[in-house]
Amino acid sequence: MTDTLSRTFSALADPTRRAILARLSAGEATVNELAEPLPMSLPAVSRHLKVLEQAGLITRGRTRQWRPCRLEAKPLEDVAGWVAAYRRFWDDGFDRLEEHLRELQGRTDG
Amino acid sequence: MTDTLSRTFSALADPTRRAILARLSAGEATVNELAEPLPMSLPAVSRHLKVLEQAGLITRGRTRQWRPCRLEAKPLEDVAGWVAAYRRFWDDGFDRLEEHLRELQGRTDG
Repeated sequence: MTDTLSRTFSALADPTRRAILARLSAGEATVNELAEPLPMSLPAVSRHLKVLEQAGLITRGRTRQWRPCRLEAKPLEDVAGWVAAYRRFWDDGFDRLEEHLRELQGRTDG
Repeated sequence: MTDTLSRTFSALADPTRRAILARLSAGEATVNELAEPLPMSLPAVSRHLKVLEQAGLITRGRTRQWRPCRLEAKPLEDVAGWVAAYRRFWDDGFDRLEEHLRELQGRTDG
């Protein structure tokens, strides 16, 4: 029983799978097209595609001979939504405020 | 040899670890404070903290008795940066454009 977001993060925790998603963001591609630039066997690429498919990050066409892979962005939208809750920790404004508070602290201490 | 982003995604692929980060976004906390609401042993919580620490998502204070955990947002900023490249796939504008193109396609097909 893995929750959806955990499955998404787990699928993204691999540079090959992220490279595949980046390629698919330019349009649909077959397994052979996806495998071409990758330094691994076709079965290895297929295993990565299966992980991406199970996480809902890609879907595959129904045609038996030519089953193009297609990016599905909903899980990525969920990741963006999750991480957005932490935005205030790196926004410029927050950094400047923190720096300012540290400076004030320094003056008090000194 | 795991790349930084893969290590971050891997660390985030667990609901307990994400709950710990959410708690720390409200401020520093000790291991005991973090463990209190969690349905698991203190050693189990410590193992999760170790994964978060190794991924650079938290740091821990130096004091031996009271080693507060602190959220470190840099890896989360990197996640936000990575996922932002896919934003066009779920932005309203894109959805509407896609829907419009589908409608046009439907008219051509019909």
